[in-house]
Order: sequence, then C-alpha cells, then structure tokens
Amino acid sequence: MKQNNRYVKELFELLSIPSISAQTKHKKDMKKACDWLVNKLESNKFKASILPTGGHSVVYAEHLKAGSNKPTLLIYGHYDVQDPEPLDEWTSKPFKPEIRSGNIYARGSTDDKGQLYTWIAAIDELLKNKSKLPVNVKFLIEGEEEVGSKNLDEFVNQNKSLLEADICIVSDTHCISEKQSAITYGLRGIVYFEIIVKTLEKDVHSGIYGGNVLNPINVLSVMISKLKNDQHKILIPEFYENVRILSTSERKQLKTMPFTENEVVEETGAKVCVGEQSYSPQARKSARPTLDANGIWGGYQEEGIKTIIPSCAGAKISMRLVPNQTADEISAKFEKYINKITPRGVEIEVNKLADGEPIIMDRDSKYFRAAEKAYKSVFGTNPQYCLEGGSIPVTATFKTTLGKDTVLMGYGLPDDGAHGPNEKMSLSMFGKGIRTNIEFINNL
Amino acid sequence: MKQNNRYVKELFELLSIPSISAQTKHKKDMKKACDWLVNKLESNKFKASILPTGGHSVVYAEHLKAGSNKPTLLIYGHYDVQDPEPLDEWTSKPFKPEIRSGNIYARGSTDDKGQLYTWIAAIDELLKNKSKLPVNVKFLIEGEEEVGSKNLDEFVNQNKSLLEADICIVSDTHCISEKQSAITYGLRGIVYFEIIVKTLEKDVHSGIYGGNVLNPINVLSVMISKLKNDQHKILIPEFYENVRILSTSERKQLKTMPFTENEVVEETGAKVCVGEQSYSPQARKSARPTLDANGIWGGYQEEGIKTIIPSCAGAKISMRLVPNQTADEISAKFEKYINKITPRGVEIEVNKLADGEPIIMDRDSKYFRAAEKAYKSVFGTNPQYCLEGGSIPVTATFKTTLGKDTVLMGYGLPDDGAHGPNEKMSLSMFGKGIRTNIEFINNL
Repeated sequence: MKQNNRYVKELFELLSIPSISAQTKHKKDMKKACDWLVNKLESNKFKASILPTGGHSVVYAEHLKAGSNKPTLLIYGHYDVQDPEPLDEWTSKPFKPEIRSGNIYARGSTDDKGQLYTWIAAIDELLKNKSKLPVNVKFLIEGEEEVGSKNLDEFVNQNKSLLEADICIVSDTHCISEKQSAITYGLRGIVYFEIIVKTLEKDVHSGIYGGNVLNPINVLSVMISKLKNDQHKILIPEFYENVRILSTSERKQLKTMPFTENEVVEETGAKVCVGEQSYSPQARKSARPTLDANGIWGGYQEEGIKTIIPSCAGAKISMRLVPNQTADEISAKFEKYINKITPRGVEIEVNKLADGEPIIMDRDSKYFRAAEKAYKSVFGTNPQYCLEGGSIPVTATFKTTLGKDTVLMGYGLPDDGAHGPNEKMSLSMFGKGIRTNIEFINNL
Repeated sequence: MKQNNRYVKELFELLSIPSISAQTKHKKDMKKACDWLVNKLESNKFKASILPTGGHSVVYAEHLKAGSNKPTLLIYGHYDVQDPEPLDEWTSKPFKPEIRSGNIYARGSTDDKGQLYTWIAAIDELLKNKSKLPVNVKFLIEGEEEVGSKNLDEFVNQNKSLLEADICIVSDTHCISEKQSAITYGLRGIVYFEIIVKTLEKDVHSGIYGGNVLNPINVLSVMISKLKNDQHKILIPEFYENVRILSTSERKQLKTMPFTENEVVEETGAKVCVGEQSYSPQARKSARPTLDANGIWGGYQEEGIKTIIPSCAGAKISMRLVPNQTADEISAKFEKYINKITPRGVEIEVNKLADGEPIIMDRDSKYFRAAEKAYKSVFGTNPQYCLEGGSIPVTATFKTTLGKDTVLMGYGLPDDGAHGPNEKMSLSMFGKGIRTNIEFINNL
C-alpha cells in the first residue's frame, strides 16, 4: 500500500474528524463523520442514510443487486473514537493523520475507521472491476461503540428486517503479526460503572474537621482496595461462578499463541507482567474475567497544596466478562457488594454506564471457511483462531437478535495502541485488509 | 459594622484580587495584591516595601515612632488565598465580594484578608484620633501561607533584625461564637505530600492488557487504604510515638469547649461525626494528629466511558501534627512506610510540598493579659483559651528564629468555610476585631 494511494487519502479525511462519542462538545463532529460516510457510500452506488437512535445516529447503507440467491453480508463498523488524552504524549496530532515508518498515526486509525475502511475500499475495487458485486452488502456503522453501544441493541431490535443478513462481519480486532493473520472467535463482555461516594455537603478545612469526618477519598480507596486481593483475584462474591472452562483443544491452542510476559512488558512499558498465578498471560487476557479502575478523581488536583477534605470522590470501574457470565448477573453482584462495603455515613451513587455480553462463535460455517481461504491467499499461511480480551458488544446482539454469527476479520496489530496515545494502523495491514476482503467476497 | 463603612469598602478592593498562590497563572494578581497593600500602608504613614523571597514576595511595612521604650508588635498576615474551586457551589462569585445577611462572602474574606484588615483599620483609627501610635508596629504580610509558607523560614532567618519585635500577632484563627471570643494558644503542624504511582509507559486498552499489568489506580487505592485502619488509627509505624499528652487542666478545659458531634455534622453536612473512639471531637481536632487525602486523580475523568488502564495515578496526602511530633520525623516515617507498601513493579514518586511544626505558646505574659482585657471589653466575657486544629507554620518560625511567642487573636467564626465554597466573614466580627485590636494596643 503506497502512501499516496487513493484509499489512504480518503481514510485521512475520515481520520481528521474528531468524532469522540463520549463528549457532548463533539456532537457536530459526529454528524460530520456520518455525512462523510453517507457521501462516500453513495458515490459507490449504495443507498445510504443516517438513521436516528437514542444517542448518536447510525449510518446504514445497502447495495442489494447480487440477487436473492446470493448471500447478504452485514458489515459492522464504528465511526466514533476514544478521547485522545493525554495529548502531550502524541508525537503528531491525533486528528491530523500522519504517516511515519509505514504506519498511519491518528486516533481511530486502527479502532475502527481504518479497519472499517478496508471494506469500503474493497467494495470500491470490486465495483471498479466488475459491473456488479457478487454478494449483497449492508453496512451498519454506529457512533457509540466507544461509549458502550448503549442504543444499538434497541436499534437492531427495531430494524430486524432491514438488517437481515446471512452473516455479520466485523473488522475491529487484530492479527498476530503482519505475517500471521487471525480470526477472532470469542470476545469478552463488559460492565462499566461509575461510583461516587459523598461524605460531606461541601469541601471543608482539613485542619478544622480532619479526624472527625469521613474523607471520601480515603473511603473510596478502601472500597477499591476491597475489589481485588493481592493475588489479583476479584473479591466480589460468586464473581467467578459462571466462568466457562476452556476445552482441552482450546487450551492447547492458547499455548501456541504469542502474548508472553515479555511481550506484555514490551508493549506497555510495565516493569512486571502480573496476574492470576495459575494462568498464562494469554489465558488471563482471553479466558479470564478482569476488573480495573479506569479513572478516579476527587479533591484538589492542581499544582501545590490545598488543605481540604473534599465533599465527594468518584471512580470509573469496569469488568471484562467471559462466557458464561452475563452482564446482568455481574452487574447485580457488583452493586450488591459495593453497597455492602460502603461504610455507614457515606452516600453512594452507583451508575452503570455500559454493558455488553461475552460471546463465542460457532466456527463451523462456509463463511469461516471463506475467510480462512482469503487470509491464506493474502498472508500465505492459515489464520489462527483467537479468543480476544476486548469487547464488541454488537456481536452478542447480532447473535441474539438476528440469530447470526459474526466473522471477526481484524487487520490491526497488537502494538497499534488503540485507546492510547500514538494510535496507529500499519499501511501494509491496511492494504492486506482490502485484498483479503476482496478475496473473501469472491470466495462466497 | 455598617455595610457602607469605609473599611468594608477598602477590604472589598483587596478581596477582589484573585491572589491564588498555588497557581502560576495568578502571578500578576499576587503582585497586584502586594501593590495594593503597600499603597494602603503608605497612606497610613508606614514605610512599606515589597521584599523578594524564593517564591511570592512579602509585604513589609513599619511605623516605629512610639519610641524605644514602647513595645514593638510584629503583625503577621497573608495576602494569598486558596483556589476557589468548586466554582459552581458558590452563591456569588468568589472574587466579587458580596454582603448577604450580615456576612461578607468572598474567597479570602476570613482567611486571611478580612482578619488582616482588622489591624490595618485599627491602626488607621488610632492614627486618626491621636497624632501617633502608642506602640511600634511592623507588618509582615506573606504570599505563600496557602502553599505551606515554603520560603518564609528563610526570609525570617535572613531578616532577623528587620523583624525584631517584643511580640508577634497573628489574626488567622476564629472565636467560638459572635459572643464568645477565643485566644488560640496552640496549633497543629503539617506535612503535605504528593505521591505518584506509575506502572506503565502509556495508557493501554483495558481489554487487551487487563489481568496482566498493575493498574496504578488500584495500586494507589490499596496504598491509601493501608494508611489508616477502620478505627481511624494511622498505620504508619511509630506515628504516635511523640504525641504530647494533655495536662489535666488542659483536658478539663477541652471539655468546656463547644465542638460536639452535632456541631461537626451541622457545619459540614456529614451524616456522621466519626474518629478515634477514645477521644472527643474537640480532642480529635486539637490534640490528636490526623491524616487525610486532599486530592486524587488518574485515568479517565470525563463523562461516559473510556476503557483504559492509565499509566499513572496520584494523590495529595497531608498529616496534621501535634506537639511533640516534628515535621522531619513524621515525613521520614511516612516516606519509609510508603516505600514499604509500594508493590514490586511500581515506580513511586514522593514529593513533600509543604511542612510546618506544631506549637504551644507560653500564655504567661503581659501581651496575653492585654489581649484578654481587650476581648473582655469588646465581647463582654473573658476569652477562652483554645488549641486549634489548623496550622500556621509561621508561629513556630517566630518562636525558633525570633525567640518570640505569638498571640493568636482570631476573628473568624467556626462556620466561615475557609478553604471551601461560600467562604465568609461576619461583618459584626470584622467590626469587633477592629475594636479589640484598638483596645489591645491601648492596653500595652
């Protein structure tokens, strides 16, 4: 893939739009990204429109001229991105895409605009070379993936016939390396909470009231300390009750996967790779549930000192779930435990911000065979089947609502830095993605 | 004191200057406050100047015409104020002083511009009525009290003869009520730290790396949870070793002081007043050391969700000290313990931001007698002797460097809300303060 390739240039336009779904101030940019996608898909002879949801709109587009005897693909992607903070750690600006050493650097490059674009480009290529597509294609491109897809379930439910398809496709995962491709067949679920503890009506002087009132930061810290023990076990009662045990063949396969302690250390800059003792890094990432605080705040955070006891403090806390845990079950257990460990005299607010179910696909279908073949022809080797640590809640929704599995054809790389500073997508993976998608469609 | 009193109007000018010492962006405002004070004192026939320190300048002014047989007072105050956040909790703007129900609302009204101004006004009154002052007066007005007076020790040390005096005066404490005045004879010391824990080089995706790396927010929470137990005892080894036991008469006196559990609850809006079980609220506030987190931060704090593990997290943690603890001793014990409870694989940064020694005054002097008499004549009752929970490190500096005690003649009230939103000073206390100061000087 050359730097001056037309698809790279087009992708740059999309990457330049700061479509951060979490932040109200970017509402206009969200609309701008929708408009851009509609225009692009219409220029590819798709019927495209912006459809409302309870939150950010989705872009829906269809090209259904292959005939009813040909399969229909529902290709899912998302146009929203994560907040790019901390900005000062970016080498180039997050919304001013730049190519360095064969990589496109920009927020959303790998997650998910770049990966989504491999499909738009593949279809463009196919249409350029043939007069019509060999399959029917529907695009569902949402704007709330990074905030938990909270309105997508309802949208899919209310538009079942519009979205009817033979197979769903998502490109929002990654290969093992530029040489070793991968098909993700399972994803973790997620529940994401915000908890706010309040002990006072207002911030007070720590000299006058210190020693006589509960300090919400100290209280919150103690509560968070009770969520995991020093062996990295989650302490919420019955949290592990429904965790699915991997089959022997899955365990065998896991062992062949890269993701060693050294790799974790190298990719994150951690001094140590640590986790549940009886599990490998790969198992901890894909087959075990986790709990992390994603943010915390309270009191004085500026330079220098302020001698206060703040009135409240808060934290964002999320858990990654594995089959057969469910979001509802874990949410209830979390809330019950949080209430139990809240000391007397503390007002607590527990808000669920997002959730999504874990999923495992049935790999035994012609679509998985077509994907395998396409990967092999472009990458030269068979793709590896992977369980992923991240969450793409829409895959569970497709399964329960449309009754269809999803083929996760990812073109990211493990060191792409999704959600962090200097997010990138490899130019070569972008090119391979387009070619693999063309092969896949031709194989059907 | 009437609302349109000249001194109220002048004080409003000073309160309108946002002289927040902690924040670099307010450097110009700090200078503006200095200039304003110099002009004011010069108009009162003081020789006034702005003297440099390692940080924000001090205002020094003298009026030494009473003769060498008359005592010299060194009146200390500070022109800097605390950050007014959270702004949305203020009824009127923090730097737009407003009178409501007999109170002046503004950041710095009680701490310390309003209290300082009782002295400027008192001297103005005395000079208006007599041609000369009955005592010699030196003003030392610093700009770093709210950030721990970090350059004042050195300034006092280098200017011993300039600051030479018979007694030091500080008005930066409070009375018990509008009817019951108080003289503070002891103050707690303070050590104030910032700790930053780092576990990763950059923020990473919580789905990919969760379960395999240390989360700095979880780590920091566990560390903070190890600083106190659920009986409110500080767990730093030998922390209580040097705590002075109150004398029988002090304990008796403590019992007569107001500051009940109900009062704490009412003044702070706390649901419960809690602390070390074997001590009364008054003892916990004045005779016992404390530890509080004053701020905490890390990861994503905006609306919605961001599924990251942040690279680092930090907290501000301060301790209030009582005689005979020392700032150096407690700092060393804190740092040693923090290092001990830092898990392997965590980079830790421990920065001391401020400190100040605890102090107890010798009340047996003619200056304390003069103050008692002045309070009695204005308030109608004898003042109560109090140990205060706050810290005014300069009093310890005056003792060790100039060899002089300080009479703490405070005119605040317990519910003034220093350091919090809607800080106020009672107009009536402002007026009583000016009159008490005049009486005090006339009694010498």
